[in-house]
Amino acid sequence: MYRQIGNIVFEKQPSIISYASVAGGKESEGPLKNSFDYIFSDSYAGQNTFEQAESVFTGRAVEIAMDKADMRPIDIDTAFCGDLLNQCIASSFAMRRYGVRYAGIYGACSTMGLGLIMAAISVESGASGRALSAASSHYCTAERQYRFPLEYGSQRPPTAQWTVTAAGACIVADDPKDISAPYISAARLGRIIDFGIKDQNNMGAAMAPAAADTIYGFFRDSGTGPSDYDRIFTGDLGRIGSRLLRDLLAERGIDIDDRHSDCGVMIFDESQDVHAGGSGCGCCASVLCGKILGDMAREEYHNILFVPTGALLSPTTVMQKQTIPSVAHLVNIRI
Amino acid sequence: MYRQIGNIVFEKQPSIISYASVAGGKESEGPLKNSFDYIFSDSYAGQNTFEQAESVFTGRAVEIAMDKADMRPIDIDTAFCGDLLNQCIASSFAMRRYGVRYAGIYGACSTMGLGLIMAAISVESGASGRALSAASSHYCTAERQYRFPLEYGSQRPPTAQWTVTAAGACIVADDPKDISAPYISAARLGRIIDFGIKDQNNMGAAMAPAAADTIYGFFRDSGTGPSDYDRIFTGDLGRIGSRLLRDLLAERGIDIDDRHSDCGVMIFDESQDVHAGGSGCGCCASVLCGKILGDMAREEYHNILFVPTGALLSPTTVMQKQTIPSVAHLVNIRI
Repeated sequence: MYRQIGNIVFEKQPSIISYASVAGGKESEGPLKNSFDYIFSDSYAGQNTFEQAESVFTGRAVEIAMDKADMRPIDIDTAFCGDLLNQCIASSFAMRRYGVRYAGIYGACSTMGLGLIMAAISVESGASGRALSAASSHYCTAERQYRFPLEYGSQRPPTAQWTVTAAGACIVADDPKDISAPYISAARLGRIIDFGIKDQNNMGAAMAPAAADTIYGFFRDSGTGPSDYDRIFTGDLGRIGSRLLRDLLAERGIDIDDRHSDCGVMIFDESQDVHAGGSGCGCCASVLCGKILGDMAREEYHNILFVPTGALLSPTTVMQKQTIPSVAHLVNIRI
Repeated sequence: MYRQIGNIVFEKQPSIISYASVAGGKESEGPLKNSFDYIFSDSYAGQNTFEQAESVFTGRAVEIAMDKADMRPIDIDTAFCGDLLNQCIASSFAMRRYGVRYAGIYGACSTMGLGLIMAAISVESGASGRALSAASSHYCTAERQYRFPLEYGSQRPPTAQWTVTAAGACIVADDPKDISAPYISAARLGRIIDFGIKDQNNMGAAMAPAAADTIYGFFRDSGTGPSDYDRIFTGDLGRIGSRLLRDLLAERGIDIDDRHSDCGVMIFDESQDVHAGGSGCGCCASVLCGKILGDMAREEYHNILFVPTGALLSPTTVMQKQTIPSVAHLVNIRI
């Protein structure tokens, strides 16, 4: 691989040889209901706590991805996993049963993008033959950790997003049996951007500038523009953040309006009462590993940008009246 | 680079061209007091909160490392950073001012090892020309997050360790001006090991099996043994965990007793009332970036293993009566 200023260009086409998505009950009632590999209609997934349930979601996505590729854990060299929970416990408790070499990552809702990039670098460099990237989120773990106990039933402002209960997993390899597998062509790790937003109920506004920075930089450094890609999928900006992103890019002369979709907007229908859309690491992870890669396999798209965004705040920084730093990572996937 | 079963062997000698450590007042009174680049005797480091202070520690370590190499943030292609705080805020708030491409990592107290391995892979693969790895911890942020408010003055059992207030930063590059710089020769990412320990006041016992698994596997897959290395530094097992590690390896016929040191034991004197020793991401990060790499520059050692360990628990998993999964990452550094 080589650097194209701030971009990374892969030369050996690290391929996504398998992928799987797992979602919860509410997600299974949305527009993408047919794209998930497995639905847990029980939020507890048979566990005693929501945190253990989230680990089960991650584990199930990982196991289905391995099954599809006819692999066992021993076939995976490195796992890059992360989630929103304090100390990323959904991932570490999910992965402890497999004995796979483990690299914990944290990018808030951008985690799936960070994991895919790390997996692709690891595979193309020879550090891994097969690398796994997985991410998850759960409405009931995130809500009580970031905001209020669920039992409060606190009212949500229209700018708020709904944490998606879902997980996604991809296996990246340098030895694709199937030459028609989607592959990672280029990537760009994001810089931390802080536009001074303090409202934790308006994450879309906090994250949009990071998405704009990464997308603009990728186009500039690669000498490409929106028309070179079939579709640009952002992570979970939601309705408000998506509008802001388009405006911010328009100010720089870049028009993505006719080819931009946001995973946070795609996953729920407006009738599902989620206000500005879905969010959480599991949102773009499950949309990528279900709908998007599925559509690529059906050749609906041949060349896409996947740009998940993350807000790098914590409840402590909110209480301490800090602003919300954000990041967006970009992955160019082709088939 | 290539894989040697579970190990990664680097071929281009990614070099640690600069490093810096920053520590707090208590650490500056310990045996390693002369090895730190900067001491903040004020736990607040001039900030309003301990969390902001921890970010200042990280930022200072990063800036001193850049200064020593006569670099600015624009010279760094990727930063791999992490800490113990919920959502890794010490790192993200520290790094938002530099505009460096940011990959958040989480390995609890093993974070500095994970970051060094990711930086070395990134540099040797060509994804980065220069990559940064940094990690931090702070007694006052960790104690109130993981255990009790400081004001309680709660009593600590003899197995407890003291979270180190410190940060360390390394710059890894493929273009060493100084050919005598230490370089990363090989590495091994750890598997998550859970021996069923539930006592969060005995992290050493929880982490020792992970260290034993990684060290044993590295020796087996590389065909080397303890006598091939001048010194083996574990992360922060403390006194009790160190004894357990030696016993666990002895059971497998490996004797490291005459060449093993633990960063958690090294950083404090027994008279400093820290019970089993120091801990926290900043412990091994500051010991590596002060004492250990300093000793290598003075040619006291030519070939070492740096094996930081991390306990992947959270206060939530403790309250939910879960066991403590742990991980240890190994970095072979030579000069």
